[in-house]
Formats: sequence, structure tokens, C-alpha cells
Amino acid sequence: MENFNFYSPTFFAFGKERENECGELVTRFGGRKVLIHYGGGSVIRTGLLDRVRASLEKASIPYIELGGVKPNPRSGLVYEGIELCKKEAVDFILAVGGGSVIDSAKAIAAGTLYDGDFWDFYEGKAAITKALPVGTVLTISAAGSEGSPDSVITKEEGMLKRGAGSDFLRPKFSVLNPALTQTLPAYQTACGITDIIAHLYERYLTNTKDVEVTDRMIEALILAMITEGPKVVSNPDDYEARANIMWAGMMAHNNSCGVGRSQDWTSHGIEHELSALYDCAHGAGLAVTMPAVFTYNMKHDVMRFAQIAVRVWGCQMDFANPCNTAKAGIEALRSFLISIGMPKNFKELGADEADIERLAHTCCYGDGSGSGTIGGFTPLSQSDVEAIYRLML
Amino acid sequence: MENFNFYSPTFFAFGKERENECGELVTRFGGRKVLIHYGGGSVIRTGLLDRVRASLEKASIPYIELGGVKPNPRSGLVYEGIELCKKEAVDFILAVGGGSVIDSAKAIAAGTLYDGDFWDFYEGKAAITKALPVGTVLTISAAGSEGSPDSVITKEEGMLKRGAGSDFLRPKFSVLNPALTQTLPAYQTACGITDIIAHLYERYLTNTKDVEVTDRMIEALILAMITEGPKVVSNPDDYEARANIMWAGMMAHNNSCGVGRSQDWTSHGIEHELSALYDCAHGAGLAVTMPAVFTYNMKHDVMRFAQIAVRVWGCQMDFANPCNTAKAGIEALRSFLISIGMPKNFKELGADEADIERLAHTCCYGDGSGSGTIGGFTPLSQSDVEAIYRLML
Repeated sequence: MENFNFYSPTFFAFGKERENECGELVTRFGGRKVLIHYGGGSVIRTGLLDRVRASLEKASIPYIELGGVKPNPRSGLVYEGIELCKKEAVDFILAVGGGSVIDSAKAIAAGTLYDGDFWDFYEGKAAITKALPVGTVLTISAAGSEGSPDSVITKEEGMLKRGAGSDFLRPKFSVLNPALTQTLPAYQTACGITDIIAHLYERYLTNTKDVEVTDRMIEALILAMITEGPKVVSNPDDYEARANIMWAGMMAHNNSCGVGRSQDWTSHGIEHELSALYDCAHGAGLAVTMPAVFTYNMKHDVMRFAQIAVRVWGCQMDFANPCNTAKAGIEALRSFLISIGMPKNFKELGADEADIERLAHTCCYGDGSGSGTIGGFTPLSQSDVEAIYRLML
Repeated sequence: MENFNFYSPTFFAFGKERENECGELVTRFGGRKVLIHYGGGSVIRTGLLDRVRASLEKASIPYIELGGVKPNPRSGLVYEGIELCKKEAVDFILAVGGGSVIDSAKAIAAGTLYDGDFWDFYEGKAAITKALPVGTVLTISAAGSEGSPDSVITKEEGMLKRGAGSDFLRPKFSVLNPALTQTLPAYQTACGITDIIAHLYERYLTNTKDVEVTDRMIEALILAMITEGPKVVSNPDDYEARANIMWAGMMAHNNSCGVGRSQDWTSHGIEHELSALYDCAHGAGLAVTMPAVFTYNMKHDVMRFAQIAVRVWGCQMDFANPCNTAKAGIEALRSFLISIGMPKNFKELGADEADIERLAHTCCYGDGSGSGTIGGFTPLSQSDVEAIYRLML
């Protein structure tokens, strides 16, 4: 195991009706003027936004609002938010929504206290050394942003999707009420489940030896998704299954199961180009990407893929030919994702074979800032990435 | 799943040589005058205390010291520490040692800022509303106190062992260097492993339904102990196995795997009387206690014991008679504990059959403050507890 720091100071208020405590939570963590940041119609339609407003009002906390965050959140709205926070002397950002809203809130939080262009953080030109405090009311179990130090933003110019991370971006508090996710359609719920599973595989695919405890924790969380995922896709009102998924989603990404080991993040890198170009759901893109990446990378460490096949997917170990077991595990993952309604190839995703070279180039080189290879598990060049995209046809 | 709060704001500095960062960690968390609190000779003998002193000196942080913490830490030294902290205007306590030292440090931290008798907190007569900040340098993977809000102290008068808990007692930082545990003899290492497993079973034995995600996480951590425990008992220098155990020990007790579910804590209650009266190692007491408690309580929820038997201990499910599976799981646990060198009965523990009535009475009634029953899984009266002690003969 490698040396590491782990710091997850977020206060989690989990359970029914906890959004009504927003006012006291903001007060507890020092907020006196709030920006409520949200997406589109659902938080208005369900009355959630009204409940959050009422809670702030009850605590006598003034607030302003900025809605309109879209999936794959854009830099344009971040600039708008930064300007608003500066002008209105906002000292706390409350994100009400899913990963996109939270990621956008984190970008605004860092950008408001930075003299330069916030995009510097996402291009790796500057490190985040301070940020406004952020609280969240989560409505989608997926991104894990409610407990993570990460944020992913898409820059409209060139549709570049890039991430930044800092402990300063970890939310001060996150309200996790599983009931808030019950309005989410089955398809988007399944996208979230896929994203959670991807966060776990990205950590599982490591070159670090002797990481049994984190291996076991990752396996545990995937096993829970296999049990709970289909329940909630077939019955979106299943509060208990949603509660299990919600906690798993946080645990999958606050990195307690990823410490002290190298990680991969190839699937996320390859998928990011798909959702940036086609604006497909991140989880749907990952469902198509993961089996292709794993099939391509399997040879790098067959026993690792065999281990997860046996321990998680219930495959029998083929001691004469572990490759068969490894492959069976990848196929079991693929079948599971299809069973919860995820797309299986480029066509179902709305992606175009003709774009493959361009996708692979942007993936490896970005706007010129990329190194030419991606992946922590085994370095992949543009031609490798092209081959992986072809496996998705 | 039940509603819950989860808050684990401790900064973990994990890995080789991290104790040399104590000075900057104390500074980061606001300490300006430190009490170094420790136990006996090993931290002196290994040079650890010198390295901690040097790190504080390098950061120009003045410190005083209070050694002499014993296993099952006593109230007498806590009173001494509180007096010392008040007199010397200490504003940060640095615990260098195992769970006993950390628990003692937490008691001093709470007591220093309290006008009454610190024992009030341990008798449930007062709630902890503030405490000095505590940092830890952990030398034994066991108690989980390095990431928990809990502290257990024994009052000399009547040898009463009682616990207190508060988020204010969560350490600000914990240095987890697995190499520091390498000097620990196999027996004490095995005691620590047993304690970690007990923390997991106490959470596993729940009456809350639909807790798949935390079930799986608990199972994962026990599975890791089954793999890593014997490695380190047979080769105390195995850094990697110790690293896995160290992270598992923290995760087992910071409660991320215990949230939203009722918990048991019967085994700890019954064991506390053994280590208080005979001064045996807590882990050794638990090794004798757990199989007896589980055997007695099995009928309360056979399927729960069958589940852990199958998922963790690799037992085959007996669909015609799940009791057989449940029993096989308990026997597998017992065999495992014996295999790592733990005692198996009263005699090996140095306990006396003649004390059973007295042990059971104190367990259920304490010094008069007890309710007469113990246990969150199924309430046990004094006669139940006596029967459990008899299963240990």
C-alpha cells in the first residue's frame, strides 16, 4: 500500500425530510449569504426548492438563486455564478441537484475567490488554494460529488470536458434524502448506478500490490449495487433500495476505498469525450465504454479481472485458463448494465464511427495540454483508444 | 435504513514515517501548547517518542508530557492529565500509543474544558459539548479510537469500565504508520485483530431491515481480516498486511459501515466486565465472549447468522436447516480466533466461574445506573448474561 492522506470532513445528514434542516446546517458551517444553485424544472416541480428556501428563511439567512445548470455543466454558467457571488457578497453556495449542479457549484466556489480565470484549475494551470464553502442537497445518486473533492466542467469553446480537484472543494455538508431521488426516471437512475460502478472499477484497476482491504471494500459496494440496482429500476419508489444506493454512491467516491493504491480512470477519460461531443448521459456513455476498456486492458493483469469475476460476479474460477474467468466477469458486467436498461454500443448511444479518430485524439491530447497517453492502469496511446472505441461499434 | 448523521472529519496521514509530520499537523489544526500523552516503555524504546518530540521542536511548538497510561486506562491518570492541562494552559493533546492512550487523551480533552467531574460523561450524567483538540500517533491497530468519537475509561473505585462518545472527541488528525505496529508481539496483534472483528460483528447484528450496503461493507472488512490477520501473526514484520489491518481497523469503527442501522454491542458489554475485573486484554476477552454471545443469540435471527456464515466464512447454505449454517459460521469464527492464538474459554482467560453472578450483575446494573438489560440486538437480562458466561467455561 502506498502512503496517502485521507480527509473527508463533510457532514452527512442522511434520511427522510433532512432538506428541511438546510437553514441550520448553513448556519452551523458559517454561511450568512447564500447562492442557491440548481438545474431545471424537477427541483421546482417537486417542491424541493420551496422547502430549501423555507428552511433558509426560517433561519433568517438571505439568499439569491442561479438555476439552469445542464447535464455536463458548462463554463458559461460558472462565469455567471462567479460574477453574481462577487457582486452580491455571497459567502456560501448551496447546490440543490445532482452531480452536475454540485460540480458547477464547486467551480463557482473556487472561481469566486480567484483573481484569474477559473478554467485555469481545470487545465491544470493553477491549484485551488481556497474556495467558498459549499453545501449540497443531493437529488441523484451517481457522481459522488456530494462527498468528493472533484468537479468536472465542460468548456463550450471546443466542448472540452475537464476536471479539477482539491480538499477545499469537499462540501461542508451534504443532505442525502433518498426520497428526493424517487422522482428520477428508471433510465437516469440506471445511469447513476452505472456511474457508481464505474467509480469503483476505476479504483479497482490498480498496479499497487497488497491492497486487500480496499479491494474487498470496492467489491462490497459493487455487490450492493448488483442487489439494489435492479430493485430500484423496476420499482422507482423503493425508498430502501435508493437509500442503499445513495450511501454506496458516496462511499464509492469519497475515496475511502481508493486510498493507497494507483487508480485507472481510463473509462472516464474515454467516456468524457463521448458525453462532451454527443451530450449523452455520462452513465450511459460509461456503460458502453467500460466493457470495451476492460476487454482491451484485460491482458495487462488477467488475475485482477479474474478476481473481480469470482468475488463479485459469481463466476467459477477457470484454473487452467484464468482468461476465461476474466472474460466471463466482463460479460457479466455488460449483461448487468444492459439488464438495467443501459445502451450497449455506439449506435444505441447516438455516437458516430466517423468521429473515432477525433474522439481519440482529443482524449489523449486535449486542446494541446494532454500528454498523448491516458490511463493509470496501463498507458494507452491514441491508437489504443481508437481501438477501444472500435470495440464499442 | 434509519435516518442518521455521519461526520468523520479526522485527517488521516497514513504510511511510512508520517510521525515526523506531527509538528506541522498540530500547527495545521491550531495547537500551540501540546500535552504528549503516552503509555509505557515501547514508545520510548523504539525511539518513536523522540521522533514526535523532534517534530514538535522543529515546528517550534512547546510541549509537556504525561506517560503511564495502562491498558484499560484508569480515571486516576485522567484526573492528573486534566489538572496538568489546566495548569499549563495546554491547548492540544497528542496521544502517542494505542486505543488506551487515545481514550485517555480524549477523556482529558473533554475534562479540561468541563467544570464538573469528567466521570459525569461516562456515567451519562452530562453530555460533552466541547473538548480540547486531540491528535493521535497510532501504535496498535485495534480500538479504532483514532477515527471514532468514543472513549472507554475504567474507574479504579469498583473497577467500573464505562464509555462516552461525542463528535467533539473525534481526533483532528491521526498518524497511521503501519510500521509502528511492527514491534507489537503476535499475541497483542491478534488481540487487536479480534477487537476489529468484534467492532464489525457488533454492527452486523442489527434489527434494521434493508441494510445491504453496510452489510456488504462489514463483510468486506472481516474478509480482509481473515486474509491479512494470519499473515501478520506469523510474520510480525509484514508491513503490507499491517497496512491493510490498520486501515480496516479505522474503517471498522469510524462507523461508515454502521450508519442507519441498530447495533448490538452485547459482546463489548459482557467483555468489559472481564477485562475490568481480571485486567485481561480486551481483544482476548472478546475472543472468548463473541462465540458465546452469538451462540446464545442465534435464535433471534438465524438468517442473519447464516448470511455471514455463507458470505464471510465460506459455509455452504443448508436450505433445509439454516441453523446448521448459522452454527457453522460461529464455529468458523471461533476456529479462526484460536488459530491466531486467542484464548477459547474462561480458564485460558484467567477468569473464575465463581465470579459469574457478580460479573453478570455489574454488566446489567453497573453501579446502579444500568437498566437491568443489555444489548441492541435482543435485550438480555442478568440471567441471560449469566448463561452466556457459562457458555465460556
